[in-house]
Amino acid sequence: MSKSLVLIVMGSESDLPVMEEAAKVLKEFGVSHEMRISSAHRAPKKTGLMAAEARDRGVRVIIAGAGMAAHLAGVVAAETTLPVIGVPMPGGALNGVDALYSTVQMPGGIPVATMAIGKAGAKNAGLFAVQILALADNELAGKLAVFRQSMADEVEEKDARLLTS
Amino acid sequence: MSKSLVLIVMGSESDLPVMEEAAKVLKEFGVSHEMRISSAHRAPKKTGLMAAEARDRGVRVIIAGAGMAAHLAGVVAAETTLPVIGVPMPGGALNGVDALYSTVQMPGGIPVATMAIGKAGAKNAGLFAVQILALADNELAGKLAVFRQSMADEVEEKDARLLTS
Amino acid sequence: MSKSLVLIVMGSESDLPVMEEAAKVLKEFGVSHEMRISSAHRAPKKTGLMAAEARDRGVRVIIAGAGMAAHLAGVVAAETTLPVIGVPMPGGALNGVDALYSTVQMPGGIPVATMAIGKAGAKNAGLFAVQILALADNELAGKLAVFRQSMADEVEEKDARLLTS
Amino acid sequence: MSKSLVLIVMGSESDLPVMEEAAKVLKEFGVSHEMRISSAHRAPKKTGLMAAEARDRGVRVIIAGAGMAAHLAGVVAAETTLPVIGVPMPGGALNGVDALYSTVQMPGGIPVATMAIGKAGAKNAGLFAVQILALADNELAGKLAVFRQSMADEVEEKDARLLTS
Amino acid sequence: MSKSLVLIVMGSESDLPVMEEAAKVLKEFGVSHEMRISSAHRAPKKTGLMAAEARDRGVRVIIAGAGMAAHLAGVVAAETTLPVIGVPMPGGALNGVDALYSTVQMPGGIPVATMAIGKAGAKNAGLFAVQILALADNELAGKLAVFRQSMADEVEEKDARLLTS
Amino acid sequence: MSKSLVLIVMGSESDLPVMEEAAKVLKEFGVSHEMRISSAHRAPKKTGLMAAEARDRGVRVIIAGAGMAAHLAGVVAAETTLPVIGVPMPGGALNGVDALYSTVQMPGGIPVATMAIGKAGAKNAGLFAVQILALADNELAGKLAVFRQSMADEVEEKDARLLTS
Amino acid sequence: MSKSLVLIVMGSESDLPVMEEAAKVLKEFGVSHEMRISSAHRAPKKTGLMAAEARDRGVRVIIAGAGMAAHLAGVVAAETTLPVIGVPMPGGALNGVDALYSTVQMPGGIPVATMAIGKAGAKNAGLFAVQILALADNELAGKLAVFRQSMADEVEEKDARLLTS
Amino acid sequence: MSKSLVLIVMGSESDLPVMEEAAKVLKEFGVSHEMRISSAHRAPKKTGLMAAEARDRGVRVIIAGAGMAAHLAGVVAAETTLPVIGVPMPGGALNGVDALYSTVQMPGGIPVATMAIGKAGAKNAGLFAVQILALADNELAGKLAVFRQSMADEVEEKDARLLTS
Repeated sequence: MSKSLVLIVMGSESDLPVMEEAAKVLKEFGVSHEMRISSAHRAPKKTGLMAAEARDRGVRVIIAGAGMAAHLAGVVAAETTLPVIGVPMPGGALNGVDALYSTVQMPGGIPVATMAIGKAGAKNAGLFAVQILALADNELAGKLAVFRQSMADEVEEKDARLLTS
Repeated sequence: MSKSLVLIVMGSESDLPVMEEAAKVLKEFGVSHEMRISSAHRAPKKTGLMAAEARDRGVRVIIAGAGMAAHLAGVVAAETTLPVIGVPMPGGALNGVDALYSTVQMPGGIPVATMAIGKAGAKNAGLFAVQILALADNELAGKLAVFRQSMADEVEEKDARLLTS
Repeated sequence: MSKSLVLIVMGSESDLPVMEEAAKVLKEFGVSHEMRISSAHRAPKKTGLMAAEARDRGVRVIIAGAGMAAHLAGVVAAETTLPVIGVPMPGGALNGVDALYSTVQMPGGIPVATMAIGKAGAKNAGLFAVQILALADNELAGKLAVFRQSMADEVEEKDARLLTS
Repeated sequence: MSKSLVLIVMGSESDLPVMEEAAKVLKEFGVSHEMRISSAHRAPKKTGLMAAEARDRGVRVIIAGAGMAAHLAGVVAAETTLPVIGVPMPGGALNGVDALYSTVQMPGGIPVATMAIGKAGAKNAGLFAVQILALADNELAGKLAVFRQSMADEVEEKDARLLTS
Repeated sequence: MSKSLVLIVMGSESDLPVMEEAAKVLKEFGVSHEMRISSAHRAPKKTGLMAAEARDRGVRVIIAGAGMAAHLAGVVAAETTLPVIGVPMPGGALNGVDALYSTVQMPGGIPVATMAIGKAGAKNAGLFAVQILALADNELAGKLAVFRQSMADEVEEKDARLLTS
Repeated sequence: MSKSLVLIVMGSESDLPVMEEAAKVLKEFGVSHEMRISSAHRAPKKTGLMAAEARDRGVRVIIAGAGMAAHLAGVVAAETTLPVIGVPMPGGALNGVDALYSTVQMPGGIPVATMAIGKAGAKNAGLFAVQILALADNELAGKLAVFRQSMADEVEEKDARLLTS
Repeated sequence: MSKSLVLIVMGSESDLPVMEEAAKVLKEFGVSHEMRISSAHRAPKKTGLMAAEARDRGVRVIIAGAGMAAHLAGVVAAETTLPVIGVPMPGGALNGVDALYSTVQMPGGIPVATMAIGKAGAKNAGLFAVQILALADNELAGKLAVFRQSMADEVEEKDARLLTS
Repeated sequence: MSKSLVLIVMGSESDLPVMEEAAKVLKEFGVSHEMRISSAHRAPKKTGLMAAEARDRGVRVIIAGAGMAAHLAGVVAAETTLPVIGVPMPGGALNGVDALYSTVQMPGGIPVATMAIGKAGAKNAGLFAVQILALADNELAGKLAVFRQSMADEVEEKDARLLTS
């Protein structure tokens, strides 16, 4: 297992297409990371251990994505003082409102930094991890500034294209 | 610690006025029980241990009540194959909808038997525990039949009183 | 009609693909069961009778699945003191939120053990029935422990596969 | 028991302050009625009987009010072909959304005519019963026309008062 | 225009596939009816007139179906003292929750008898109209009893088929 | 009745404390206005007339506030092509979500400019009316600029006070 | 860039199919307009500038459409005293409820005139802009009257067609 | 203005009792911070500037709390690449669901780390800021470990007290 600054953990294999958005961002910014599957409910010991050992393994930020009664981020956060970012999965009968409430409504003492439901949230989880790491990494901070500018430029281009269409 | 058939665990001291409704029912039916405080987030190891040891201690049914992103029942259920009954707490900005979704929307594999939000749910959690235990206890089954009849009688009396008022 | 420990009743033929998840679990665990159709609204007498006679027929646990204003589990629970597990059906304009509220928000006195909306809930209803029956059946309890371990193993395998992919 | 054209049934004594709004309307219109307590869950046989016998007793319209997983109106409707009007009670953690969904989302075959949550709904239940009875009672139809005019007049007066305040 | 006992009015041509469920029931029971399009917003005068003239034309019950901010049933009810049954349409971003609230939450004074969202609601609207008309039509009352029995029989058959499958 | 540029109409006397927020703003900006009571349901003719005559009376903008199944703004908008601003009232069991959906979810063709639920919405309704009128009134436009600056200044002051507290 | 009376701005290229409904209406009424892309989050400076300069460029009304945490309309409204109309986009896991709340629940001081979620809302945004402009343009007011009549006529035709089908 | 590692900004003075929970945590951990008032809507320029200058002033983490259509955190996040933590305020007719959706449902590109609605969320915002800062501050990391242990100890004590009560 390679040393990773960011640990992405998801509750189920089916969460992969969503959580890959986080990995893509981290890859783009050159931040080492690994994607893992664990489950707060079906594999509680593995989950607890993965969270508890993360700091000593060199992990700095954990991103956790799960659906329905999404306990994964909260359970991970309970076992580490590393920053934990939660991504609620869409799908199921409630389409992610359950996962959102289960992730964001953490009681006082154990914070989970919750992102939007689904792919936008997973992408932002990756970006937020980069923003945290950039506090101690000027190169990364520079890349973030470039990324922000490129987003603004893209808006500019699309606006120009629409105006002339 | 006295031997208890039913373990009632709640996430916070402030849940006591609600969860006492479960204890009241168990007392009424003469079922041994204990009320405990643990927290899936602030005391994950204690919670895991309490759940994992319950069967060997003689516990047959666990009732877990928690609020907001209520992970307690799910975390307990993940560590035992005893029947776990969840009671979502009211209160907080979402007044228990968050706790309801966090408790009931368990993914396949780890069931939590969810009751109504608040005192009605806690009372029913106690009754459901009795109904489970009564499967192997004819005396308890008899008491349940009497209890049901007394509820019907009470409706009858109130109806009669209203008719003649 | 063969003697069944678990009675699975659903409000409509169209609930079958969901409720079969409960039957599959029971089959896997070797628990005798039967699947029945009845309707709290279109066949109230049949429903009441089915519930009232269940205990004497040897049924130990009832699983009831229904959609929309899902009264089936509550109506069944009102006619028996056997443990009743409710499964809210997805579908309809509200996609199961109506069925969830109609099943879980039972007033004090008549508990319904509510599971998640849809297939995950039906599967868990089957598992919860097994967990109840396992209280008096060590072989079943052993199978549950094996089942839990196999879920943890499956997570382990999927995690390993993802890591090396 | 006096002969009543309208039967008002509520699930609990605590629903009385709300359901009295229906009775007040009926009294105002001179329609015979009675208020009863029964419970779909705690007194299912009484409820079924009350509904089944209503037509032969001379009842023409049934108004049923209940809270939480409000099954009363649906259970009554299942046992009679008289028009059944449902009034969802406010209160509880979900403040009547549960009662609304449990009352209005009836599956095809057994209609419940659902009114607004709480006192406005109970008042309208009384008025709707009058509107049904007025189809065969010209005097009642005349009173309804007067009532409508008086409401319009009251709006007129309040508007005039506000304009000159 | 033929004389109709039941007037079915819908806000838009696109509501036809849903509202036809009401017409089908009325046809089955041999109740004269007509389907009309009007809009509370785009054709307020036509709508007001249609409602105001209905009683004198011999209409006894009005069924109104509309979607989104569904004002149709309320606007019709404001112009007549005939019983008005509201059917919330599914569809739109909120899939009928908006139509449900706009139809059922009528303030005190002007009742709308609200049915479930969509086809089940439209079917029940037809049945509820029949139940109202049957109060003064013994033949219709008899047909309703037969219809109820046939629903119960159908449940019985489906249950038998499932048991032997 | 004095000539008013803005007509504020509310469905009930009880809406006055909320709708006065709109009047306060208009008074502050020196815009003539009148507050009226009418009801889409209890006084449909008065409401229709008030809306239909508004333009000829010199009214330029209409503000309509109502609660529950809040049809008032939509009914007014259907009878005029003046800009209609809707304010959903809080209160009732759903506390204004019903009024919000009933006001904002207008079908294509008849727009209602919807503001936030309650006092903030009423205040903004007044401001929005001023913003519309200011398009043809430079003095009013100037006052709006001053008002905006004063809000920014107030934030500045409060921030300074907090910093030095 | 041609002089436009109405500025339509959307948060993303993907909002175009919805926002074109507003443009279509404006084209139909012969109102000059332009469609622009800007983003409150990815291009905050561009957005602020576009809003701040609009009045001096001759813009009279701004229509802003955005999805999810839809800040665009509010951010635009904060930088101008021109009337700003907000259109919540459907889509995402919450299908526009998030965009609706983020657009309509503006705090007192900065109004956003919110329309329905999606295409109906975009169409109405166009119409509402026309209604505002028509206050100072009798020709436009005349066109609005014709448009309203044509909608009523269309309802009449569809009703006639249904009656004779 | 003293140099602060954490900038706490709130949309209104009335948010102070909630946001003080964040400040209390930071004080407890000895982290320099300042509390500020700004408004995305009433003071957009001040808000943009405050966010844009924060990094150069030495701020490392920003906490933003706002209510209703809570744009503050998103608007701040758009102007900086520092980690921004959002706290949705309770209150208003929707009691914070609007603020939650407006804060958490950020589109891809601009993350806001969202906490629970209200005081629990504000407290966790403070803790999450500490967890971020502790990545580069071993003393702070040590304090976090002690804090976690003290929470677990407190649960232990309360549990013991309940057991012996």
